Amino acid sequence: MRIAELAARSGVPLATIKFYLREGLLPRGELTSRTQASYNDVHLRRLRLIRSLVEVAGLRLEVVRYVLVAVDDSSLGRHDVLGRAHTSLSPSASSPAVSAEDLDMVDTLLARWGWQVHGASPLRSLLAQALQALDSLSHPMSDEALDAYAAAAADVASVDVSQLPADRTDAVETAVVGTLLREPVLLILRRMAHEARSARRV
Amino acid sequence: MRIAELAARSGVPLATIKFYLREGLLPRGELTSRTQASYNDVHLRRLRLIRSLVEVAGLRLEVVRYVLVAVDDSSLGRHDVLGRAHTSLSPSASSPAVSAEDLDMVDTLLARWGWQVHGASPLRSLLAQALQALDSLSHPMSDEALDAYAAAAADVASVDVSQLPADRTDAVETAVVGTLLREPVLLILRRMAHEARSARRV
Repeated sequence: MRIAELAARSGVPLATIKFYLREGLLPRGELTSRTQASYNDVHLRRLRLIRSLVEVAGLRLEVVRYVLVAVDDSSLGRHDVLGRAHTSLSPSASSPAVSAEDLDMVDTLLARWGWQVHGASPLRSLLAQALQALDSLSHPMSDEALDAYAAAAADVASVDVSQLPADRTDAVETAVVGTLLREPVLLILRRMAHEARSARRV
Repeated sequence: MRIAELAARSGVPLATIKFYLREGLLPRGELTSRTQASYNDVHLRRLRLIRSLVEVAGLRLEVVRYVLVAVDDSSLGRHDVLGRAHTSLSPSASSPAVSAEDLDMVDTLLARWGWQVHGASPLRSLLAQALQALDSLSHPMSDEALDAYAAAAADVASVDVSQLPADRTDAVETAVVGTLLREPVLLILRRMAHEARSARRV
């Protein structure tokens, strides 16, 4: 299809598509003349992925790029892509050091749940940092609350992982999309549950 | 305490504190001379709240301001503040319209779970939009997966709400802080659970 049809079918404005092409986020089409290129379903799917990562997951373009590079790198296994996606997704990667005490709390939790976390993953210190922030606001999370959160996380992860396709490319995309685009679903549902509970108490 | 001590105790740079004062995010101290003001624990606590909302929850300053105004408005009940915080937190408030079909799916889910959601809340259309994005990427969420997510959300909301303090100001702050700052905890734990499950399958 021509670029105009790609725009029509994806709902993404022509200028935006051209920007993604220039930025290398979207692979170039096959040249059919000196000034025209042809696009296919791979482009359409990639375009939808980019828009969802931007609009639904709220990612900045440089993060989108980082995730797409990992998705496209067939030397990376699913586990590595997931680790890399997690590394790049931290809203607070540039934040202050965390205390040994909070890291201990995280490690104790991981051990309690028997969870093995990717070596390069920033998740341990991110969690320690989130707990530290709650402490410093005098809203510490109790072990009971943390375990309830971990149980909920384990339940949804179990459903997510059980539904991964067998094919590598599909599985990688599903894992990344699943991590990113199902996050809002979980957060929105949690807020709905909050409002529902809070309305009942009023 | 003087502003220098406020900076030392909060770990927030002096220039940042002055910026928050100018922007009205932090209430002015009590003037003790023509050029000096005195600050107290209320300022310290507010400062920590702002930093956490920015650093941990990743909110933009105008969203922080909107949340703080609601927290400070004692005419708003806890349920209203929560609704307003939710309204302001949408990463994709400016997004395209959602289909009636997806909204139906959301309403069916809400009815299935008996959840009443705040009238002005954008959560319904946000959820429909998230589901639509997953559909358009050929990664639709099954009813089974959605129910697993809703169950997890209900579990954590139940723990959160059961721990709210009785006092209005405390309850409002706890509800907002709890919604915002416990979100990263849930997401990080979900990613950890993903990595742990994914490592086991490799």
